[in-house]
Amino acid sequence: MRLISSVNEMMAWAKEQRRVGHTIGLVPTMGYLHEGHLTLMRRAKENCEKVVVSIFVNPLQFGAGEDYEEYPRDLTRDSQLADSAGVDVIFAPAVKDMYPKGYSSFVEVEQVSDHLCGAARPGHFRGVTTVVSKLFNIVRPDIAFFGQKDAQQLAIIRRMVEDLNMGIAIVGVPIVREADGLALSSRNVYLSPEERKAALVLSQSLKKAKELIAEGEGEAERIRQEIIKVIEAEPLANIDYVQIVDNRFIQPVERLEGECLIALAVRFGKTRLIDNLVMEVSPNDSHDA
Amino acid sequence: MRLISSVNEMMAWAKEQRRVGHTIGLVPTMGYLHEGHLTLMRRAKENCEKVVVSIFVNPLQFGAGEDYEEYPRDLTRDSQLADSAGVDVIFAPAVKDMYPKGYSSFVEVEQVSDHLCGAARPGHFRGVTTVVSKLFNIVRPDIAFFGQKDAQQLAIIRRMVEDLNMGIAIVGVPIVREADGLALSSRNVYLSPEERKAALVLSQSLKKAKELIAEGEGEAERIRQEIIKVIEAEPLANIDYVQIVDNRFIQPVERLEGECLIALAVRFGKTRLIDNLVMEVSPNDSHDA
Repeated sequence: MRLISSVNEMMAWAKEQRRVGHTIGLVPTMGYLHEGHLTLMRRAKENCEKVVVSIFVNPLQFGAGEDYEEYPRDLTRDSQLADSAGVDVIFAPAVKDMYPKGYSSFVEVEQVSDHLCGAARPGHFRGVTTVVSKLFNIVRPDIAFFGQKDAQQLAIIRRMVEDLNMGIAIVGVPIVREADGLALSSRNVYLSPEERKAALVLSQSLKKAKELIAEGEGEAERIRQEIIKVIEAEPLANIDYVQIVDNRFIQPVERLEGECLIALAVRFGKTRLIDNLVMEVSPNDSHDA
Repeated sequence: MRLISSVNEMMAWAKEQRRVGHTIGLVPTMGYLHEGHLTLMRRAKENCEKVVVSIFVNPLQFGAGEDYEEYPRDLTRDSQLADSAGVDVIFAPAVKDMYPKGYSSFVEVEQVSDHLCGAARPGHFRGVTTVVSKLFNIVRPDIAFFGQKDAQQLAIIRRMVEDLNMGIAIVGVPIVREADGLALSSRNVYLSPEERKAALVLSQSLKKAKELIAEGEGEAERIRQEIIKVIEAEPLANIDYVQIVDNRFIQPVERLEGECLIALAVRFGKTRLIDNLVMEVSPNDSHDA
């Protein structure tokens, strides 16, 4: 496995791969890799001849007062993990090379970024789409792999690629969870033992929602209130949002129909965690209780 | 020469050219081609094995009350002209295919778009950078050719390509003028005979500025006032802006030094024309008069 930090070297490597006819898979990450990331890498390895993992804690997607400085970093450990997953290149550029003096260009996706984390973290997705555009241009992958954990991010990137004719296939990979249900996240290291335990309400509340829908509940607000009830029973949990939206344009729905996304953001102490559930609901599945 | 209107067909054609190792030059235009465009095409033909000319009157770069509807269009004549210049493909997509229902993604360049036409036409350059990003992704040219006539547009596109790592060489081609000095523009057809004559003050005022600089004038405001004097002597001319900026970040300068851009936008009746002059001024060239 090769570790590349230079943008030009990364472009040259990718160009050479294309020249010899290799397909390239890209897994963009902020590092501090966990089993969720490794699942993306293995999926990329199955689908592409060469796999690039980018590791870049992108300052542009952190707001004032967010955890940019504290975000966990460990390139040595990340390199070993990526190597073990069969990755060909880790691309870990420096901030000053990604955003040199005078940097002024941004990519924005409207509408899909109106709600959920787009509303809670102003500028966040503009930072994401800008850095992902740069990574796409530098690596020019055939396929890029993103976790379903960041459901809104995935929807935004799908829209950006389609709108801007990027010609890259986007693959969303299901959430990887601990045995007890907690969705994997690099931010889980921030949790105290008590918070770690309390955070189980996220997956538990989604499980409750799933059961309600299976029983025929189709009204979004009723499901939402049940989720809130589960989370609020946990004293350490502070809800940022609980929302039910369509999974393409991420707009609130009143009734569950088609591909819906139930998305949560909840704080435990200073740590903000997200989780979600995507449900394909046919009109016949749901009826008033 | 081939005429392509489908985005997918254009992508497939360009991909095949890359596969067989051809370099591709792109000349983005809004059509109604004139000698300025043809100069770009011939330049592209000299530098690239295949040349694509896009013809697309981009609604996104026209503001409310601007001339989107009236903008002159003549695809038959454009095709003949492009063919005669050795162009391989005209790419003329439909608006509904470039901006389908639900379209939400935009590319923006800050700072470089603060002044001149960026200030006079809010949203204009966001429309330009968005459509050019799409065209770049669809065609993936090795080199793209733009007229120096739209000096700020050229500076913005250079910055976008550098910032977003697009890996495309940008070539700026000097302004082509009529024998009497009027810069070629598709909008010149709007001018009445009297306005056409009055519009000569644009190139005349720039000539005056050039003389002053040759005589050693280095203070931007003095040059600016002389330009304004020449233009205001023409009763049919209404100044939109006269500004002197650095040619890279398009920020106003007090003294001419390095590569400077003198840029004008002036209305004649309903028609808004632009013209400009780029000067490389070394500190020794200019001194107080």
